[in-house]
Amino acid sequence: MSLLVVGSVALDTIETPFGRVEDALGGSATFFSAAASLLSPVQLVGVVGDDFPVAHLGFLERRSVDLSGLVKLSGESFRWSGVYNFDLNSRETLETRLGVFARFQPRIPEQFRDARWIFLGNIDPDLQLDVLEQVRSPDLVVCDTMNYWIEGKRDSLMRLLKRVDVLLVNDSEARELSGEYNLLKAARWIQAHGPAMVIVKKGEHGAILFTDDSIFFAPGFPLEEVFDPTGAGDAFAGGFLGYLARAGSASLDHLRRAVVYGSTLGSYAVERFGVERLVELTLAEIDERVLRFRELTMFEEPIAVQPGS
Amino acid sequence: MSLLVVGSVALDTIETPFGRVEDALGGSATFFSAAASLLSPVQLVGVVGDDFPVAHLGFLERRSVDLSGLVKLSGESFRWSGVYNFDLNSRETLETRLGVFARFQPRIPEQFRDARWIFLGNIDPDLQLDVLEQVRSPDLVVCDTMNYWIEGKRDSLMRLLKRVDVLLVNDSEARELSGEYNLLKAARWIQAHGPAMVIVKKGEHGAILFTDDSIFFAPGFPLEEVFDPTGAGDAFAGGFLGYLARAGSASLDHLRRAVVYGSTLGSYAVERFGVERLVELTLAEIDERVLRFRELTMFEEPIAVQPGS
Repeated sequence: MSLLVVGSVALDTIETPFGRVEDALGGSATFFSAAASLLSPVQLVGVVGDDFPVAHLGFLERRSVDLSGLVKLSGESFRWSGVYNFDLNSRETLETRLGVFARFQPRIPEQFRDARWIFLGNIDPDLQLDVLEQVRSPDLVVCDTMNYWIEGKRDSLMRLLKRVDVLLVNDSEARELSGEYNLLKAARWIQAHGPAMVIVKKGEHGAILFTDDSIFFAPGFPLEEVFDPTGAGDAFAGGFLGYLARAGSASLDHLRRAVVYGSTLGSYAVERFGVERLVELTLAEIDERVLRFRELTMFEEPIAVQPGS
Repeated sequence: MSLLVVGSVALDTIETPFGRVEDALGGSATFFSAAASLLSPVQLVGVVGDDFPVAHLGFLERRSVDLSGLVKLSGESFRWSGVYNFDLNSRETLETRLGVFARFQPRIPEQFRDARWIFLGNIDPDLQLDVLEQVRSPDLVVCDTMNYWIEGKRDSLMRLLKRVDVLLVNDSEARELSGEYNLLKAARWIQAHGPAMVIVKKGEHGAILFTDDSIFFAPGFPLEEVFDPTGAGDAFAGGFLGYLARAGSASLDHLRRAVVYGSTLGSYAVERFGVERLVELTLAEIDERVLRFRELTMFEEPIAVQPGS
């Protein structure tokens, strides 16, 4: 059930209509681990600078996140700052300081190389490929990316796609990668170029899993307050892979449920700043919301419908 | 099981990236009836000019749509023309010629006044109120509206809301009416001002039914080609109320299924120009797509999940 994540560990300064936090714990590997570790042990590979408050990762260690792949380099940690608009549907990046992340060369410790479940967080596709060279025979490789790499490193990304099982992207990334506006066509295009499966995240509008011969849809969970969308996509990935690692299976039934766990973790992530909500989240709360997802979409067979009186 | 619709019967000139049609059958009452009549008899109240090709409504009569409430006035029929952008997500109205529709004063024929199910298509809220004065004791009144009335006839609309059971609007209308950006808050605001239930249509992103103590979500059906979105909302209303009239019940279980029937009819409507697809649609095709909606969202109870090996 070993679950490996490679990605960024960062310090985020975030402003939303509800407030502002400075140097809060962030990064794809952090959000992923904060979510996945509620369901499964996690092995983390990343890099921080010597200014990083490593004690802040203590909650992850207490949840069986193995940080022995977290390298500390001399220099500044990766910092991102952004401001969200009033409806939280768009954001502006104010500053990105890569710091030691610019020198990140993921080295997978020997004891992580047999990982069965792998999440390649959003980093340079050449580094993602390099990670795949170092692991032995994973059951499932899930990969994230972004427009920056789709535009700037397309050849590497296309090579990478041949080696991943699930591409996990948002709708605009799926469209840009494929050149197709229609999401069904976009997913089919991506599947024809490597990944057996595609998950398209649509934020508040839900997430869609495309497999060879099925489509599964999970809605966005209706929330009265979205506090901070940062990290929702990585929390989704953590819920998705954490569930699969816990179940020990990537059968179609489990994949469908995994999407619901992903949506559940993503929906909790946005309820507070950064990873705050995920820090205090419990398995009981996860199970409760998964059941509410079921109530949200379940309807009985319509077969019995007869003309009424 | 009598189902009454009051709304527009129009001639639409539509341009999409896929082609153009001129003076095609359109209007809210037409789309509603074309969809609902696949599930239940319908009573239609509307107005056309003396230029209207009434023979084009023959397919409705053959499906038990009672047109005895369709008045013909001397003058020009209601004409609308619009052009959709390349992704079909927005459209520009080129021309609206109200013609005889400007003089529309819905008169409900005596034999329609005991209707149990009523759809008030998108017309002046004063006329919608007037319709409610003429009917006796319907089981369920569903009402549509638009930004034009929300801005221009807010007082009448608020009076109307006190007398309808379900407000059926799209997301931007729900937001404008309530002044709330968050759709859950918007629905709660609307419910506090009259309708026990609100359905928010989000186009390709699905539809949400808000009742007192539950939320039901149906996704947009994944289509490779959306041909012409005109009338999708009214086809949704027709599928929704047609299903309820057929079932003879507005229990919560039936309401949830009715949303799926609404989404199904809406998804078929957009596959061809105007009402073309609804003209040839069969009940078997409807049932087949309802089952596919079920496959799209169904997942098993997650209770049995145990840590794997």
